[in-house]
Amino acid sequence: MTSAAMEKGTLIVGGGVVGLAVGWMLARRGEPVTLLEKGKTGREASWAAAGMLAPATEVAYQEDLNLMLGLESMRLYPEFVAELQQASGMDVDYRTEGALEVSFCADDTARLRHILGYQQEKNLPVRSLSVTDALEMEPTLSGFLSAAAFCGMDHQVDPRLLTTALKKAYLLAGGVLREDCEVTRFVLEAGRPPAVMAGEERISAKRVLLAAGAWSGSLAGLPDKLRPPVRPVKGQMLSFQMGAIPSLTHFLRVVRVPEIYMVPKSDGRLIVGATVEEMGFDRRLTGGGIYELLKGAWESVPQVYDLPLLETWTGFRPGSRDNAPILGQTAFPGLFVATGHHRNGILTTPATAVHMASLMLEGRPPDILKPFSPDRF
Amino acid sequence: MTSAAMEKGTLIVGGGVVGLAVGWMLARRGEPVTLLEKGKTGREASWAAAGMLAPATEVAYQEDLNLMLGLESMRLYPEFVAELQQASGMDVDYRTEGALEVSFCADDTARLRHILGYQQEKNLPVRSLSVTDALEMEPTLSGFLSAAAFCGMDHQVDPRLLTTALKKAYLLAGGVLREDCEVTRFVLEAGRPPAVMAGEERISAKRVLLAAGAWSGSLAGLPDKLRPPVRPVKGQMLSFQMGAIPSLTHFLRVVRVPEIYMVPKSDGRLIVGATVEEMGFDRRLTGGGIYELLKGAWESVPQVYDLPLLETWTGFRPGSRDNAPILGQTAFPGLFVATGHHRNGILTTPATAVHMASLMLEGRPPDILKPFSPDRF
Repeated sequence: MTSAAMEKGTLIVGGGVVGLAVGWMLARRGEPVTLLEKGKTGREASWAAAGMLAPATEVAYQEDLNLMLGLESMRLYPEFVAELQQASGMDVDYRTEGALEVSFCADDTARLRHILGYQQEKNLPVRSLSVTDALEMEPTLSGFLSAAAFCGMDHQVDPRLLTTALKKAYLLAGGVLREDCEVTRFVLEAGRPPAVMAGEERISAKRVLLAAGAWSGSLAGLPDKLRPPVRPVKGQMLSFQMGAIPSLTHFLRVVRVPEIYMVPKSDGRLIVGATVEEMGFDRRLTGGGIYELLKGAWESVPQVYDLPLLETWTGFRPGSRDNAPILGQTAFPGLFVATGHHRNGILTTPATAVHMASLMLEGRPPDILKPFSPDRF
Repeated sequence: MTSAAMEKGTLIVGGGVVGLAVGWMLARRGEPVTLLEKGKTGREASWAAAGMLAPATEVAYQEDLNLMLGLESMRLYPEFVAELQQASGMDVDYRTEGALEVSFCADDTARLRHILGYQQEKNLPVRSLSVTDALEMEPTLSGFLSAAAFCGMDHQVDPRLLTTALKKAYLLAGGVLREDCEVTRFVLEAGRPPAVMAGEERISAKRVLLAAGAWSGSLAGLPDKLRPPVRPVKGQMLSFQMGAIPSLTHFLRVVRVPEIYMVPKSDGRLIVGATVEEMGFDRRLTGGGIYELLKGAWESVPQVYDLPLLETWTGFRPGSRDNAPILGQTAFPGLFVATGHHRNGILTTPATAVHMASLMLEGRPPDILKPFSPDRF
């Protein structure tokens, strides 16, 4: 690849779901795209995520703007998945059984009622359930259940399958992928197209998209006014081999208690997440983090006590200063940003991909992206 | 190696601490020894152990006979370690700071007092401590401490270093080691020396020692009356990176609560063990197993909440029908057994090695081994 050839097309920095999905959208519209990933694609936050598509049940953690973007992305999700599965030839375990919000003590019940009120105020399709109905819906829940609500709108996907499918679709659409290619610096010179250094190699392009997740805020060569204010928000997670107990194959819905969530996957894994920690890029598990996940899971679904523990891991959500994504064009011509997706990267990938691709190819931001502009900081 | 050559020497089946230590004793007395290990040496129970040398504080879990063997082994330990460290040229982290038995609630305090009474009845050097004195001795203990006792006699060693040192010493003494060599069957024919099949290869020797830990009871070709009644007793364990919190470098003593124990190592690890489960050879971690270890550790030493979790693992103690080791000559001439060490394999390795070597070379069992004879079942 020469700089001259690349200057006609788009360069994407970061191979998580966001970079891959934008790359796929661009490539299938005929745009020459090259994606640079420091390691292997989708091994950071995209790999760590549980894959809940939960604009309604995550509402307590969101600004209204994020809710709007989440709902837009939910609207796009079925078609996005259908096209992706067709393009990649693989299934991404998109599931629509919905989510239960539950509580097992008075404090949490008060909190659940409070959130439910807010959800209903926002006209979100969440309804209160009797304990009996909730136990009928998910018989694996603990008999200490004291309150429950159901949201049929919240769906889920397997983020690891999603990433693999996006990589396949991107490559099949003609995208160029360079893994193990770490961008060490941005090179932004007035009157010239944006460029990056990858080791000794200078790569420039007509358009450059910074989509490096939690690393988006720490790349060299970005002046402060262009640097997205993104930091890593650490999460610890674990998974059980749910299939080891036959009755648990009927555990179908996402279950959320205030402290944790549990997400059953079609391959027999039960994912439990997640801590939310300001620890920089510290990848280590901690005693307390894993303890809280195990405790919360056991109190919700007693049978997890006997389940084989499959995997434990950590990841870094890209958190922005105001917890909303940063999506749009920067003040430097040709330099775009799509990062800061925090807890909702898997959810908002379709909206990010569709609308960022429009912005980048057509030059005008769709209305929905305007509140997320990098200019706001 | 030909069968003819081997028939003059000793063949050992199993490369854990017991097999290696007996092999080292024999080899340094000039005996030709070959050791067969199904995988790599010391990767099963020897690798999983925490390395407490605790005849006194383990007394609640023992028969009197085991206590006697444990005390004999403690007597031998300092010299055994000194010779091993000299022979191998490496340190095995032998530590003599002693152990604290502690409780944090009324139930456990009653249990601690009961055990203390039994320990004192047996004239074991365990003394009651005031809470103040205990917190002075180990300031990392939780302020909820309600009772404590101290045993200066209980020592510890790093079992992984011990295994590596034994392997070195064994090889330097002229022992032959064949790793990845699985014994598939015993071949015991009247009037001929004992032999084993390792795949298609038949290996016989003047003496054969079965020291295959939890696997000792399930090898083919042993008639029922010769087969040691040994089963796997599963344990789950974990370790923290204690060095990550500087004040924890003063955590020096083994700490025992009824449900768990914590063993600080000189390399900065803090080992927490262990579940005791009848699960056959199921190597999987479980939610409940790890939960109980984390809970017990956190309640004892609150700072573990913030400690990085280094490793989680399982192991299989070789448990005999009466929980005592099986040490001695079988009814088949030339066939010896050293297995069934259960919770105390690291502790009783020196006694096993010294006395089994005497028995095997001199033909008469030392008095101390007589109660542990395979004949007793």
